[in-house]
Amino acid sequence: MNNDTICAISTAPGIGAIAVIRVSGPEAFSICDKIFKAANDKMTAAVAKSHTALFGYIRYEDHIIDEVVVTVFRAPNSFDGENTVEISCHGSIYIQQKIIHILLKKGCRMAQPGEFTRRAFTNGKMDLSQAEAVADLIASTSAANHQLALQQMRGGFSHELENLRNDLLHFVTMIELELDFSEEQVEFADRKDLRDLAKKLEKHLKRLMDSFKLGNALKNGIPVAIVGETNAGKSTLLNKLLNEERAIVSDIHGTTRDVIEDTVNISGFTFRFIDTAGLRETDDELELLGIERTYQKIEQAHIVLWVIDSTKVSEHVEWMADKIISRTKDKNLVLIFNKSDMVSKEEQAVLNNIFKAYSKSRMHISARQGENIDILRAKLLEIAGLPDLEHQDIIITNLRHFEALSSAHESIVRVQDGLRKNVSGEFLSQDIRECLYHLGEITGIITTEDVLQNIFKNFCIGK
Amino acid sequence: MNNDTICAISTAPGIGAIAVIRVSGPEAFSICDKIFKAANDKMTAAVAKSHTALFGYIRYEDHIIDEVVVTVFRAPNSFDGENTVEISCHGSIYIQQKIIHILLKKGCRMAQPGEFTRRAFTNGKMDLSQAEAVADLIASTSAANHQLALQQMRGGFSHELENLRNDLLHFVTMIELELDFSEEQVEFADRKDLRDLAKKLEKHLKRLMDSFKLGNALKNGIPVAIVGETNAGKSTLLNKLLNEERAIVSDIHGTTRDVIEDTVNISGFTFRFIDTAGLRETDDELELLGIERTYQKIEQAHIVLWVIDSTKVSEHVEWMADKIISRTKDKNLVLIFNKSDMVSKEEQAVLNNIFKAYSKSRMHISARQGENIDILRAKLLEIAGLPDLEHQDIIITNLRHFEALSSAHESIVRVQDGLRKNVSGEFLSQDIRECLYHLGEITGIITTEDVLQNIFKNFCIGK
Repeated sequence: MNNDTICAISTAPGIGAIAVIRVSGPEAFSICDKIFKAANDKMTAAVAKSHTALFGYIRYEDHIIDEVVVTVFRAPNSFDGENTVEISCHGSIYIQQKIIHILLKKGCRMAQPGEFTRRAFTNGKMDLSQAEAVADLIASTSAANHQLALQQMRGGFSHELENLRNDLLHFVTMIELELDFSEEQVEFADRKDLRDLAKKLEKHLKRLMDSFKLGNALKNGIPVAIVGETNAGKSTLLNKLLNEERAIVSDIHGTTRDVIEDTVNISGFTFRFIDTAGLRETDDELELLGIERTYQKIEQAHIVLWVIDSTKVSEHVEWMADKIISRTKDKNLVLIFNKSDMVSKEEQAVLNNIFKAYSKSRMHISARQGENIDILRAKLLEIAGLPDLEHQDIIITNLRHFEALSSAHESIVRVQDGLRKNVSGEFLSQDIRECLYHLGEITGIITTEDVLQNIFKNFCIGK
Repeated sequence: MNNDTICAISTAPGIGAIAVIRVSGPEAFSICDKIFKAANDKMTAAVAKSHTALFGYIRYEDHIIDEVVVTVFRAPNSFDGENTVEISCHGSIYIQQKIIHILLKKGCRMAQPGEFTRRAFTNGKMDLSQAEAVADLIASTSAANHQLALQQMRGGFSHELENLRNDLLHFVTMIELELDFSEEQVEFADRKDLRDLAKKLEKHLKRLMDSFKLGNALKNGIPVAIVGETNAGKSTLLNKLLNEERAIVSDIHGTTRDVIEDTVNISGFTFRFIDTAGLRETDDELELLGIERTYQKIEQAHIVLWVIDSTKVSEHVEWMADKIISRTKDKNLVLIFNKSDMVSKEEQAVLNNIFKAYSKSRMHISARQGENIDILRAKLLEIAGLPDLEHQDIIITNLRHFEALSSAHESIVRVQDGLRKNVSGEFLSQDIRECLYHLGEITGIITTEDVLQNIFKNFCIGK
């Protein structure tokens, strides 16, 4: 597969001032020189030094197609470790398509999604978790998930895994040496040291696994459910939060009309707000379905905002408190007394009193007037318990990594169990090898074609 | 203005594998080095040779923002003649915006539309007509307008104007020398040579002006009006032509519903088809308005397709023929007998006979069945009288150029007139200078801030 020379438009689709077409593989230079004529007569991609930019033009059958700059990267000093040229052309769609068309005629193959990055992995320029981070980096829309992806791409996680693997490898080698000398009953691997290592490892893996919940929330947005009675002002609050947002806002309409999700960027972190159907006691079958979905959303949320109409306390308060609180045990529940502009301070105090048993986090806002929305946003940042991403241990954001870590964790727990039961080196070795295997899956030391295809198929073409 | 260092995203907006940010101006290298750290410790934009690519990362306040490749172009060997760096980063919107944000913080100014190209003009890297061609090149969507823009950008037109100007300059210098020696009654400029030159020039300018009609059609699409009675199958024909078109098709809905325009790419040339309201004798005010618009479209078209229902010849044939032919005098009128699948060969012969007086171009098609559509397309190419763009004189595509050429032409006609009337060198000189002035407007030797602003405001940002 690496014997092919591949090409793709690497810049965003559409018209731009310039566009970049990437060509990579053993014939990259010779194919480029078939269609490119440098302004400097003596210069070709084949003779140019690595990391030099040549001005000239693309020609095809005596037609000049465009004036371009060709940048030459010689293997292994390129993104994917192959000989690479990047053709920077005028960004008309016609020219972009025409140059791709000519490259295909001259022997290139169209790159598959993520194929350049896959080659970077195959050629040892990066491990699999770094390659996965490239896609995350390109998709990043907030400071937080940008930072996580960049850290992973730059090898932070890989380095940590490498250390864990090396410790384990040392031990398993010792144990396997014992097996070779089994008749002599020697112990090269000190069982106390192994116990300590296993304990350390188990804790480490557990911490990484635990970080996934946060990592996943940071990547996809911290889920915040907005619940409450109909007309309490849930949608108004959501709109207010969205309107104050200057960045790009994406709409994710649920499969049903009664759950609407929207993401908002607060100080570099993405929050995913889930507006739910109004809660009330009812016998209506259809409405009950909507309420059931609201319950599910409460259970999936990290934070629950219970919006209460300050102007009229519902007769169903206790019923609702029961329904909401029973589902928010380990969640952060914030009581939002909305329409604060329509009630007096005294009335607000009464409300506080009625609801104080349900949560310590309470605030008075007016969604319509935009009152105290800033305080709500600060509160969300505070109770989300967000990390200082600059000085932070590794956070897992990838489900595949989480699953591999979980399997590695299971293996290490079996190792601990075996040590406690004093099982033979043979069994210990097998469990340690299994743990190594799962750790290796993450960085791609151990991998299969299926896994690779699955990872890279979600990349964009040109990366 | 050129003292500022400017920056902009030069690739298409949106998410891509990579994006390119261009920074240009006297501080391009020093600003770049404030935020960029090369992997090779000793390397900076300030010390790098021109046309070299540096791998490294962008950092801001101790955060790493992205791993990038920075390509350095030293003045005057850059696109716009300024010191330039092109930062090739991962194409997430977040990263693109972040890097722009940092560049602005560090002393760059956001580039205005076309500002890089404007600097290229100011710095003498290209003349004004070449700069204008850059925008045309980026907007080009067909082989024909791509070819015209590229030829103009590469200086084909400029070169031709340069030759004309040089000839004239030589003469006007001679004439003005005569004026200095006026008491001695010498003629440095041979009047016969000048007459020959003026004649040659007048013909040349006329040819260029004449090419504008074609050039404009090639640029915006060759206008083809589809006319005929209601239900003759005009829309079906238009849809058929569009459906057979694999390239991008743009819809231009007229201000009124009764004129619909669509462009179709035929063998690299863009045709702009105009579907019109059905023609018929009527007293209905509203319908008459639509018909009036149809007449206007006929007058603007280069080619008129009169679609006739083969299954029933209208009683209004003569009335229609009168209306259409009176408006297509210098147009190419093609009679299209539609629904050919529903009539016999004998009936087709009858039709031919009835209509033969109106136009020699007649064909039988079935828009619904797609019959003979290929022949129609070949016919359109043939009667459009399209040039062989590879071996073609200069074709004017720009209205500004056409107007300047017209003014230059008027001046040269006055010169011819003056020569005929034997006017003094003083008057001749004034008219020749005026001609030179108008030719100079095209390449920007003579220009004003207003003209420049007008030209560059329509560019995209980043070019």
